Amino acid sequence: MAKSIMGKIRSNTQGEGRATLGTYLFDCLKKEGVTEVFGVPGDYNFTLFDTLESREGITAVPTRNELNGGYAADGYARIKGLAALITTFGVGELSATNALAGAYSENVPVIHIVGSPKSEKQKQHKLMHHTLMDGDYDAFRRMYEPISAYTAVLTPANAMAEIPKAIEIAKRTKKPVYLSVAIDLVDQPLATKAAKIEQPKTSESSLKSASRQARKLLKSSERVVLLSDAKVKSWKWEPLVRELAEVMQIPAASTIMGKGGFDESHPNHIGMYGGTLGSEKVREVVENADCLIVAGYVPSDTNTGGGTAELNPKKMIVIQPESVVIGGQEYADVLGADMLRELAALGLTAALPVPAAEHPYNSGTQLDGSKPLRADDYYPLIQRLLQPGDVIVAETGTFAYGLSQTKLPQGATYIGQGGWQSIGYATPAALGACVAAPKRRVLLFTGDGSLQLTVQELSTMMDHGCKPIVFVLNNGGYTIEKVLNFRVPVEEQTYNEIPGWDYVKLVEAFGGGAYAQRVRTIGELARAFREAEMQRGDKLCLIEMMVSDGMDAPDYLLRLGEEMEKQES
Amino acid sequence: MAKSIMGKIRSNTQGEGRATLGTYLFDCLKKEGVTEVFGVPGDYNFTLFDTLESREGITAVPTRNELNGGYAADGYARIKGLAALITTFGVGELSATNALAGAYSENVPVIHIVGSPKSEKQKQHKLMHHTLMDGDYDAFRRMYEPISAYTAVLTPANAMAEIPKAIEIAKRTKKPVYLSVAIDLVDQPLATKAAKIEQPKTSESSLKSASRQARKLLKSSERVVLLSDAKVKSWKWEPLVRELAEVMQIPAASTIMGKGGFDESHPNHIGMYGGTLGSEKVREVVENADCLIVAGYVPSDTNTGGGTAELNPKKMIVIQPESVVIGGQEYADVLGADMLRELAALGLTAALPVPAAEHPYNSGTQLDGSKPLRADDYYPLIQRLLQPGDVIVAETGTFAYGLSQTKLPQGATYIGQGGWQSIGYATPAALGACVAAPKRRVLLFTGDGSLQLTVQELSTMMDHGCKPIVFVLNNGGYTIEKVLNFRVPVEEQTYNEIPGWDYVKLVEAFGGGAYAQRVRTIGELARAFREAEMQRGDKLCLIEMMVSDGMDAPDYLLRLGEEMEKQES
Repeated sequence: MAKSIMGKIRSNTQGEGRATLGTYLFDCLKKEGVTEVFGVPGDYNFTLFDTLESREGITAVPTRNELNGGYAADGYARIKGLAALITTFGVGELSATNALAGAYSENVPVIHIVGSPKSEKQKQHKLMHHTLMDGDYDAFRRMYEPISAYTAVLTPANAMAEIPKAIEIAKRTKKPVYLSVAIDLVDQPLATKAAKIEQPKTSESSLKSASRQARKLLKSSERVVLLSDAKVKSWKWEPLVRELAEVMQIPAASTIMGKGGFDESHPNHIGMYGGTLGSEKVREVVENADCLIVAGYVPSDTNTGGGTAELNPKKMIVIQPESVVIGGQEYADVLGADMLRELAALGLTAALPVPAAEHPYNSGTQLDGSKPLRADDYYPLIQRLLQPGDVIVAETGTFAYGLSQTKLPQGATYIGQGGWQSIGYATPAALGACVAAPKRRVLLFTGDGSLQLTVQELSTMMDHGCKPIVFVLNNGGYTIEKVLNFRVPVEEQTYNEIPGWDYVKLVEAFGGGAYAQRVRTIGELARAFREAEMQRGDKLCLIEMMVSDGMDAPDYLLRLGEEMEKQES
Repeated sequence: MAKSIMGKIRSNTQGEGRATLGTYLFDCLKKEGVTEVFGVPGDYNFTLFDTLESREGITAVPTRNELNGGYAADGYARIKGLAALITTFGVGELSATNALAGAYSENVPVIHIVGSPKSEKQKQHKLMHHTLMDGDYDAFRRMYEPISAYTAVLTPANAMAEIPKAIEIAKRTKKPVYLSVAIDLVDQPLATKAAKIEQPKTSESSLKSASRQARKLLKSSERVVLLSDAKVKSWKWEPLVRELAEVMQIPAASTIMGKGGFDESHPNHIGMYGGTLGSEKVREVVENADCLIVAGYVPSDTNTGGGTAELNPKKMIVIQPESVVIGGQEYADVLGADMLRELAALGLTAALPVPAAEHPYNSGTQLDGSKPLRADDYYPLIQRLLQPGDVIVAETGTFAYGLSQTKLPQGATYIGQGGWQSIGYATPAALGACVAAPKRRVLLFTGDGSLQLTVQELSTMMDHGCKPIVFVLNNGGYTIEKVLNFRVPVEEQTYNEIPGWDYVKLVEAFGGGAYAQRVRTIGELARAFREAEMQRGDKLCLIEMMVSDGMDAPDYLLRLGEEMEKQES
């Protein structure tokens, strides 16, 4: 994707000399560390891509379709803190709605830029292609309103105000924003000065009263526990929660959506909390706390062990990005980061020692290599194979539940959709992770059912020189759905079957040059992983895990299925 | 996908005896001739799929993802007149927005059924997975409003009123409708009587005045011409426009979006009209008419030769589904079908003979088989290979423009998105066509760029026993975009390049059992087609057309590119 000299010349004549809407937009993104922009070209966004191609230090990463581009941007933002996506009017932007809604639900900031028809055609309500043929050019922006923290239609007159505002809102709310621009306005010179942007601030008085209230609750508590939840990752509070646990000398547990936010190799980390579905010992520690400090709380069904979590609000200090709730009382305009620092500064320390951690997949014993692949065996193996600094991308499905219970090494990044749970997310998200962190080892864990939705991006990864190790669990269908649909015998759920693909041959069809291996036993998996470890310097590696029992699943998921059935009756 | 006996028993105990919301819904669809339902399972639509599996005479056709399911439903509806799609809340339904918006734009009726979380969880605004984590359960329905003719949330109390109403609206407006139902309500018994549905009627007085006005215009006209446009196909007016041309003995031309609506083998058909981009002779006949009868008019940019069409409203009789406009004056509440019959009944006949038809790709001469594949040569060959009754599915891209200029044989169905133009549409749409017309020959013409967006459905077609002949034009990228982006030298449009795939190996990876052949010359194409003709009884056939000149394109598209550039300067 080397830029041609002509491109530079063109950009100099029409770009660098005088800022245009397009050059300004990409320069703003670059300033935020967004050096790659995902997307798919279309005839209404040509000027956006042409401008992007002509800029130094920021490049386009085209994906095979827009949904995948949105997922890739999401994965990229989870590592770099912000991402951008370019789509074309109607056909392009609508293909990405699921990905952007997921980013909204999971607090991932993505700048979505849509190229629209010529402004004059829009003014005249012409029936252009990619429209609803009713002259309404605002319909798709309206569709994006429920899944965007902000939407704006850019013009040369408002760009210097709207672009910084939209980026600021995305960074503050950790949600996607939507910007559309007519194809003919991208190359127009800018016309206004930038507007000043108000930053949210903590009210000192509110912080003081919150601090007083927290101190009272903590003083009277013997068992203080920290629960590190989803928003810790979105708001990058990892160092703050770690420091809080260290200073207060208290145990810390993580939720599924918060996994990886608190260093799982840290002595204060006791494991994963998932109500009655997770470790019983961790459940006791968390639910018996006199004071539970919850950072970045998202009490979703999947995040609270299928609703089995029993947490008492009266005993909780819930720290959110822009508010704090203590014993049920809310303190507005207190920034969560300030509250975390405030608690650490109270100088209170725990009365009791931190209990030992519990991880279901710890197992020192050497496995019998000839055993067929089963969850009880391959999760402990996978846990042992993880290395510090790994990026682990877990697909919704059996992998998301099994991997959530593994112990992560230091500096690992765990990427998954614990709440939105859109199958197909992980593969494009792994592309985004590879582009965001080219030097780190990226491990993608997906299932055959999920992979089939967005498989194209394996090709994009190979084409773009990404070298993840991809684990494809081939269990012949949507096993998670079969487990959760207890109403009907599995043999009747024909809709949960999928076509059998040859995933090894598939990467050859996508251009080849990959290392692909099919494995059936624990020993073969271990060997293939070792081989992949040698090969991954040059190429994408894919390990197809053939399981004999299509209903084999991690205990956590099986317990979830039982819980769902119990709740139904 | 055979139904198990257990399935029947279950359905008898819970279904046939007493109608449930689910059994009623699928029985209503079956009554409309919808015998296959596309979709993707998810844990909020299990009860919908389970009910569907248990019904006789209507089955599920799962697709690899929801966008593709929506496209397949669109292709199915273009043949059978109505289609249905099942998705799951949030993640599923949003993946399909582009497909449903396309159906809206192109007047294709699709019943979109969404399975949502338990009604009690929704009432309590619980933070369930697949939600935006804000307790808002109406957000996605609101997103669908701009692209649906009707939306409703089904309950046992309203189902017998809302389901027939929604189906009726879809059939009347030829647009998608959106129905959502909570997973726990699908098996509930029904609670009300059906509501009576008002049908739109023609006002006799309006029809009389329109008829009088039309008669006056026709009497004073020497050159009367019929232009058969897009809505003729959606409203199934094919027999009416044919009869009108025969009775009045007038020439008929077709637009790109209306292609196939008027039998192109009929002696009155003179060819395709596309302003200055199409046949010059046809343009003269159409634009010099004293009276132009336009049936089902959609004056979009692509449908009017990139805006080069010069049609005089004063001389036009524009017949729309529920109104007529004559010489600029509108007659509301006149059904188009009644107006077409009225005109035929006027007893007026043309003064001049019908001019000979003109088709750019007619060519009797035998081609030099050793010539590399070029548009000028393979379109005449493809035209000769078409047979009566074929279903031709044309992907947006160079194929859509080239194929639009071929002469179709009698009884052929032409499927393409002339207005919405979402690349990737054609492959899943071909699946829909195969399912809707299992006995007809389905020819899919797609390009490598477009195929990569939705390639999964090749696997669904093979898995479902569909046997189309698939032509993949491998020109190494988005050639149509390169042609239309005249602003920048092609070598700078790196974003219009795509990864090189091996499409022959790809169908092997998807399960094999297909006939796949790569061709480079006209002779090889002809031979591969003959071979496919023998093989297609048992298997899907794929012919990968390798072109040496990536910028080779049909004349019509090249002229469009020149016109766009002209309009820009």
